[in-house]
Amino acid sequence: MKNIELYDTTLRDGTQGEDVSFSVEDKLRIARKLDAFGIHYIEGGWPGSNPRDLEFFRRVKGERFHHAKIAAFGSTRRAKNRVEVDPNILALLEAETPVVTIFGKTWILHVKAALQISEEENLEIIEESVSYLKAQGRELIYDAEHFFDGFKDDSAYALRTLKAAERGGAAVIVLCDTNGGTMTEEVASIVSEVAKQISVPLGIHTHNDCELAVANSIAAIMKGASHVQGTVNGFGERCGNANLCSVIPNLQLKLGYGCVEPGQLAGLTELSHFVSELANLAPRKHLAFVGQSAFAHKGGVHVSAVMKTPRTYEHILPEVVGNKRRVLVSDLSGRSNVMYKAAELSIDLNESSADVQGMVDDIKSKEFQGYRYEEADGSLELLIKQRLKNWREFFELEGFKVIIHKNSRDEQPVSEALIKVRVGDEVEHTASEGNGPVNALDNALRKALEKFYPELKGMHLADYKVRVLDGQDGTGAKVRVLITSRNGHTTWNTVGVSTDIIEASWKALVDSIYYHLLKSTVPEEVVS
Amino acid sequence: MKNIELYDTTLRDGTQGEDVSFSVEDKLRIARKLDAFGIHYIEGGWPGSNPRDLEFFRRVKGERFHHAKIAAFGSTRRAKNRVEVDPNILALLEAETPVVTIFGKTWILHVKAALQISEEENLEIIEESVSYLKAQGRELIYDAEHFFDGFKDDSAYALRTLKAAERGGAAVIVLCDTNGGTMTEEVASIVSEVAKQISVPLGIHTHNDCELAVANSIAAIMKGASHVQGTVNGFGERCGNANLCSVIPNLQLKLGYGCVEPGQLAGLTELSHFVSELANLAPRKHLAFVGQSAFAHKGGVHVSAVMKTPRTYEHILPEVVGNKRRVLVSDLSGRSNVMYKAAELSIDLNESSADVQGMVDDIKSKEFQGYRYEEADGSLELLIKQRLKNWREFFELEGFKVIIHKNSRDEQPVSEALIKVRVGDEVEHTASEGNGPVNALDNALRKALEKFYPELKGMHLADYKVRVLDGQDGTGAKVRVLITSRNGHTTWNTVGVSTDIIEASWKALVDSIYYHLLKSTVPEEVVS
Repeated sequence: MKNIELYDTTLRDGTQGEDVSFSVEDKLRIARKLDAFGIHYIEGGWPGSNPRDLEFFRRVKGERFHHAKIAAFGSTRRAKNRVEVDPNILALLEAETPVVTIFGKTWILHVKAALQISEEENLEIIEESVSYLKAQGRELIYDAEHFFDGFKDDSAYALRTLKAAERGGAAVIVLCDTNGGTMTEEVASIVSEVAKQISVPLGIHTHNDCELAVANSIAAIMKGASHVQGTVNGFGERCGNANLCSVIPNLQLKLGYGCVEPGQLAGLTELSHFVSELANLAPRKHLAFVGQSAFAHKGGVHVSAVMKTPRTYEHILPEVVGNKRRVLVSDLSGRSNVMYKAAELSIDLNESSADVQGMVDDIKSKEFQGYRYEEADGSLELLIKQRLKNWREFFELEGFKVIIHKNSRDEQPVSEALIKVRVGDEVEHTASEGNGPVNALDNALRKALEKFYPELKGMHLADYKVRVLDGQDGTGAKVRVLITSRNGHTTWNTVGVSTDIIEASWKALVDSIYYHLLKSTVPEEVVS
Repeated sequence: MKNIELYDTTLRDGTQGEDVSFSVEDKLRIARKLDAFGIHYIEGGWPGSNPRDLEFFRRVKGERFHHAKIAAFGSTRRAKNRVEVDPNILALLEAETPVVTIFGKTWILHVKAALQISEEENLEIIEESVSYLKAQGRELIYDAEHFFDGFKDDSAYALRTLKAAERGGAAVIVLCDTNGGTMTEEVASIVSEVAKQISVPLGIHTHNDCELAVANSIAAIMKGASHVQGTVNGFGERCGNANLCSVIPNLQLKLGYGCVEPGQLAGLTELSHFVSELANLAPRKHLAFVGQSAFAHKGGVHVSAVMKTPRTYEHILPEVVGNKRRVLVSDLSGRSNVMYKAAELSIDLNESSADVQGMVDDIKSKEFQGYRYEEADGSLELLIKQRLKNWREFFELEGFKVIIHKNSRDEQPVSEALIKVRVGDEVEHTASEGNGPVNALDNALRKALEKFYPELKGMHLADYKVRVLDGQDGTGAKVRVLITSRNGHTTWNTVGVSTDIIEASWKALVDSIYYHLLKSTVPEEVVS
């Protein structure tokens, strides 16, 4: 089994992606997570380019990692500078990382147009920058920028740039498809060619502009590269970098390379979600291996087959990468999906009972109104349990009023909610403020209910999302509100739909509270 | 130049994707769009599986297509049925499409576990189903389900199933990687092997479970397949199908195959966005070729180089696929990005002027508060123009109040807004209702302003999105509101951030109105 070095650049190239940015604290948390997962190199940033990265390197020195070495990224020296005083080279050394990665120019177009120097001078810059940093005790990784474009333009010169890095003492030479435009077959044949000429271990760094970054990384490994660069979730400039969450399981599970220890692979899905969360991006459902939909089954035929024999419709067992199988309830499907869901909830139903048909009808009617339960398991559970004989209402709304006022351009608005609820024979009438009407309403409702249900103190709203459904009439259209709630380590999602955003929010809010009360007040055996 | 047949299954396999569903009207609109783009086959649905698809086939008969033939999808006959009375076969014929696509079993695991019939009987079913449908005058496409898994399990039997379809008279035999687990090299070698044994043209149908669907489709084409199946944007079950928006430009621009007429390729980005819109999904920014970020540049080095010579950091010219270059303004970048943006807006600035530094500072300070301008070009334009000497305020807010009341569980809440604004010396005090507080506020604000600015009648809000920024405190956290507005054919996006959702909405709303007024009342030459 050949071992492959994993080099993560989420903290550097990943942050070049539109919508992606991390605080220094985020970066440290991600670095610890990458280390725990088993990544070998973590590229922390470009110390010469911005103060946030400098701060990261200052703080990361105090950390102890088990698998990973931290790398600082930068360029070769500038043409006019002596290497010892080049600000970028100095910043790389000041980062005090065991590993330094520098990129240099391969493509004559860039040498001439961007650097405006001679071909020979570029070779000197590469060799000297590499050897100088190496002499300072750094493990030196050389990124050959635009390698494939450069090689196609002038293969002899492209190879000479690699030879310069080799002479300088680079530990790894990484072939970069910087613009992401290279086809898989070209990557394979060029890497084969280079492997014959260069004796230093080769790495591969690809971008996803042709949706081929993962395939290109794998092709390079199969032709002899032993080091792969990428990012978690494929974050990165334009269409992103090679997605390590796909590259790693493909190499390890399908092709027999050694990347991480087998048990560590089960941390892959969590790693992916963790990084999305810190980037404040909703995790992409359709991601290979780690996406919420990756092992989700919707079509009726698939659902019944996969329940009998998983490999009929699953290429791997989801648990291997820490993911799980899901059965989606949608209008394409019927009783068998509801039965599966009920089994998951430990509700014992008879498939032929009227309850099951009632549940299917409830779901269809709600979906017709614009509800979607694929991302709102909490509301779905309530909808199903509502049909069971031990269902109870936790409270009755007698009415609410929310008042928002803003008195000038620069003053913040104030939101207040008044609410009246009845629990049994008791009526509670109270009021609260909040940051906006939904928050005020949430606060007032809890305040009113906590008297009856003190366990509500344990839960809080974690996320709130609004989506306009038909996108035609703006704020007058139907809206779907999704609320994520948390209670310690449990998370649940609820949904509300209405033409009125407050009504939609109210429904999702009430479901969220019902769900929590159902879990905390009713013993499971009674429910089932 | 070898021509490739494009077979789109967005309307059938695409709708198996989580979050994807289309009305019959949507499906007809998408079919027309696919035809105009130059797709050769449009799979409309599975008439035997649901009434919505039947309705589609009924209505699509009245349409005239220029490039595309409509295909109905279904399975081979059931084991127990005679082919002439098999309900699925009958439904396929009743769809009255020129093309019928049926899938049959290749993998012995499925033959034995799912169908519970003998290997020989499966071959008879395939041959008979194909030949019967062909005899009814249909062009018959045969999808070999789980072909690659079946071939790896028992290559001789897998080939016998193809031979059965060949004897039956299939026009194309499509090799399906149904579970999406096959590696690119395996696809290449298996397709090569099959091409030696089967004389009917081969097709390829891949899924993206290993993030290799595009690479696998291309590998199959390079090894002899001449027909490729996929979906727009890669919609589809689990991780999706092969994304035709990547497959087509790769084949045509990079590898020299003929897919659509060269001019049609410029419709690719629009096709992608159109299908996302009808699926009511925000278009994915990072999609290869067609994503909003595909030609977006963030890093300072890239921006200055790409402005001089696009191919330094772009693998193709964005216009070829109907996309465009964008320069992102973010805290990673500085004056040169603001200069680029100003040039785009035809604002003539001197790079060294204090205004430019002021604009950079404004942007940084707003980004620090949680603003993001990458998706809110309208607000960015206002922020920049605010520094120009001819900037004016269109109105002054004297105050507003919004009241929402709901009187029982089943009654819809009512939202009313009262607003007082001043324009010059005139004060307007008015009120309006709405579907929720933001809509009421929007209505009241326009009502107050239309007296002064009748051109506001031309614009409306098209989309409204809310995102909680730090996801920790639920409705009490900072929220970012994004508003999309439209005026005839122009669309603009504005943003507001606050701990209060009403304040955030108000800011985005005011920007949206300012943007429209700026465009409609101030001649461009005065602004610049």
